Amino acid sequence: MGLNRYADHAVAHKSPLLNAMTHGVMNGGKRVRALAVLAAGELNGAATPALLTVAAALEYIHAYSLIHDDLPCMDDDDLRRGQPTVHVVYGEAQALLAGDALQTLAFSLLASRDVELSANTQIRLIRELARASGAVGMAGGQAIDLYHVGLSLSQTDMQMMHQLKTGALLHASLVMGALCGEGDVNEPIDALNLFAEHLGLLFQVVDDILDASQETAVLGKTAGKDDAANKPTYVRALGLEGARDYAQSLYRSALAALTPYGERAQRLADLAAYCATRVY
Amino acid sequence: MGLNRYADHAVAHKSPLLNAMTHGVMNGGKRVRALAVLAAGELNGAATPALLTVAAALEYIHAYSLIHDDLPCMDDDDLRRGQPTVHVVYGEAQALLAGDALQTLAFSLLASRDVELSANTQIRLIRELARASGAVGMAGGQAIDLYHVGLSLSQTDMQMMHQLKTGALLHASLVMGALCGEGDVNEPIDALNLFAEHLGLLFQVVDDILDASQETAVLGKTAGKDDAANKPTYVRALGLEGARDYAQSLYRSALAALTPYGERAQRLADLAAYCATRVY
Repeated sequence: MGLNRYADHAVAHKSPLLNAMTHGVMNGGKRVRALAVLAAGELNGAATPALLTVAAALEYIHAYSLIHDDLPCMDDDDLRRGQPTVHVVYGEAQALLAGDALQTLAFSLLASRDVELSANTQIRLIRELARASGAVGMAGGQAIDLYHVGLSLSQTDMQMMHQLKTGALLHASLVMGALCGEGDVNEPIDALNLFAEHLGLLFQVVDDILDASQETAVLGKTAGKDDAANKPTYVRALGLEGARDYAQSLYRSALAALTPYGERAQRLADLAAYCATRVY
Repeated sequence: MGLNRYADHAVAHKSPLLNAMTHGVMNGGKRVRALAVLAAGELNGAATPALLTVAAALEYIHAYSLIHDDLPCMDDDDLRRGQPTVHVVYGEAQALLAGDALQTLAFSLLASRDVELSANTQIRLIRELARASGAVGMAGGQAIDLYHVGLSLSQTDMQMMHQLKTGALLHASLVMGALCGEGDVNEPIDALNLFAEHLGLLFQVVDDILDASQETAVLGKTAGKDDAANKPTYVRALGLEGARDYAQSLYRSALAALTPYGERAQRLADLAAYCATRVY
């Protein structure tokens, strides 16, 4: 991704910040958010270069959230996708700053002179990303999650927490991809919203299933952490089989939501299939 | 500042995140960045409502940086402006997230539908803020600073580090204030850039002087920390008297830079005077 494109040479060599940022981004992630941007952009005839910029911004936000989540004061994880986490390699201070700077870089990318989108569209994209990742989005969900470790959370509140923590950014990825296109954004957005809702839930339920059933070596991160941390999960609420059934029904609902789009939605359908069947 | 304006009611009551954010923002700060926005906006005939939004965005970025700087893995400070720091009150995880969400909120504010600025101006403001606060700005400077605790840093590199760590955001405050106005932005920017350079340095030199000479009770934060942490400072480089002389000459240079503006620059001159004479 050539992160050092964004840093002055002299600055870059005076601290390990850029290396820490790169380590956090280039870690073999599944790029689900980037795929969502591209798939939704295709619906709306969006140009690939703009979509790639938007996809990178989403992945930077996701990477920043993982770097911060892995810190000792948060989830305290040493392993991410089979690699040592950023703070293990570069220390906590540089990891914290790397997350901070990746968030900034995401907004910087969307506001860049080089993106071939109108200023109006750029502003809409930034508004969408900010809403999805801030206090009423990803960060808000993470705050609720960590505040309730060891405490009980109702099924409704758990759903809301996940909707914020992972659903909001996935949802934003789809909407932002669509916003890059020339088609009428309001027409497909309703069906896309419905699809996004099911996809977000599906993603989280499968995450919980994998954490409870998969081995660390396959998962690339410490398995069984949710249970060990006494976290509310869908497996805890529904049992392993119940969670699997729920995931299947969410997958079917996601596909059904795509009906109005016909063949234009093939890549979105593929994305849902991937989310339903992934093993890590 | 009514931060809960930005949070959904239901979300707001499920974690202390919003309170942590408010604690970090409403801490009796000097609001130097906000004053810089307003003073530079006046140069260019900018409307007050837009300036207040931009000023709030700058203060959110500044507040996020302080919350993160105070964390145990960074400067590890319990006291900020005479109050316990955010992580002391709300725990490290909520403090980390509060900083994250305040950064997001800053960009969200600048992209808001409610700001009476063109989309083009909003994008320029966001670009400016992102550059000043990211890896080649504030976060980059902070990374260099922390990486060199206990190590030596040349006078040139120390100047660069401070330019990034505090100068860049102060500079951005002035440029962003001017961008909100209707006057030709390019005309005053040269003189403004020169003023910003002197003001940023002045601010930092006075910071070092106060850290070395003022008492904790007046400072509102732990005095003598730079020395205890073995940090490179202007007092260490020039001695206390030398640093005071340097501050005076920077103040005179800042005022001289304002000459082209005449009376329109009165508030900028006041700001420089305040930065030169502040006691905390």
